[in-house]
Amino acid sequence: MPYAPADTPQDAAAFIKSQVRTIPDWPMAGVQFRDITPLLQRPKTLRVLIDLFIERYVEAKLDYVAGLDARGFIIAPIVAYELNIGFIPIRKIGKLPYKTVSESYALEYGTATVEIHEDACGAGDRVVILDDLIATGGTMMAGKKLLERLGAVVVEGAAIIDLPDLGGSKLLRENGLPLFTVTEFGGH
Amino acid sequence: MPYAPADTPQDAAAFIKSQVRTIPDWPMAGVQFRDITPLLQRPKTLRVLIDLFIERYVEAKLDYVAGLDARGFIIAPIVAYELNIGFIPIRKIGKLPYKTVSESYALEYGTATVEIHEDACGAGDRVVILDDLIATGGTMMAGKKLLERLGAVVVEGAAIIDLPDLGGSKLLRENGLPLFTVTEFGGH
Repeated sequence: MPYAPADTPQDAAAFIKSQVRTIPDWPMAGVQFRDITPLLQRPKTLRVLIDLFIERYVEAKLDYVAGLDARGFIIAPIVAYELNIGFIPIRKIGKLPYKTVSESYALEYGTATVEIHEDACGAGDRVVILDDLIATGGTMMAGKKLLERLGAVVVEGAAIIDLPDLGGSKLLRENGLPLFTVTEFGGH
Repeated sequence: MPYAPADTPQDAAAFIKSQVRTIPDWPMAGVQFRDITPLLQRPKTLRVLIDLFIERYVEAKLDYVAGLDARGFIIAPIVAYELNIGFIPIRKIGKLPYKTVSESYALEYGTATVEIHEDACGAGDRVVILDDLIATGGTMMAGKKLLERLGAVVVEGAAIIDLPDLGGSKLLRENGLPLFTVTEFGGH
């Protein structure tokens, strides 16, 4: 594979976008799924990608990075480790063993519920929420509410990919959550 | 919280064990669930824990760290990032968007299936499989088979916690997989 220096933040974002794999008609007809596994597979992309988040937050005086189950778990703990702060998992219902608080949100058909341990963080703790991708924004909005119910300050939401045509990033910003995303794709 | 220096590998393992939270009767009566979320939450434990894996593998000339869905995703990518190698997700069926190979294994009631992308790694690649905990060893054994079907050399399996009374670690070793675990708990 050719050496890709990715010297500027703009170069880095374009490099990351170029390495995302698009899977047509998955998980259903008409959906173009944006597959991040090639970014994780190659050492160069993994480092360029993660370092964009580390450099963004290295002076943000965060207390925790929260990751959303399950692809957010791949990115968020690396950033937490590098910043020498803690990692908080926000999980689908029934997966966390200790006492939890939960939030439900609407899907196209039905609802989904996510949970957080009630002692995951405390009043005034500064937290960034990380996921792989922002689509409708439902999970990240629920994560913000959970963290705020524990008294935390949600500084920002962050993701590798934004799908702005699905409206999630607009919704999140309108509800008071600043966002940082590395790249975006049009369409669904 | 008191400063815990964890100066030797033995101290580090004892420190990690002391910070695991035991949840009685979860997810069912009679089970003592070993909760790793306190290890992730506190910067000191997260760093001591991860550094045990990094130091073990820093000269192992690995090509990839594979993580098992979903708690393995929290640990394995940090180690991959630090070693400047790639991360491979091994997922429950139906979660990976590209072409996959799959392996099923027996549970107490029924079976479970895990998958890997067919281009996740190639012939001769050296891989360690990482998970949070080894219980019956079924998922890790299936992960080993998947990686070997792609031609990889599975150097070792690794986990934070071994539950030796459940027999998984014995089974894995008898099937040719060396193991590294940080600590262990008796009982189920």
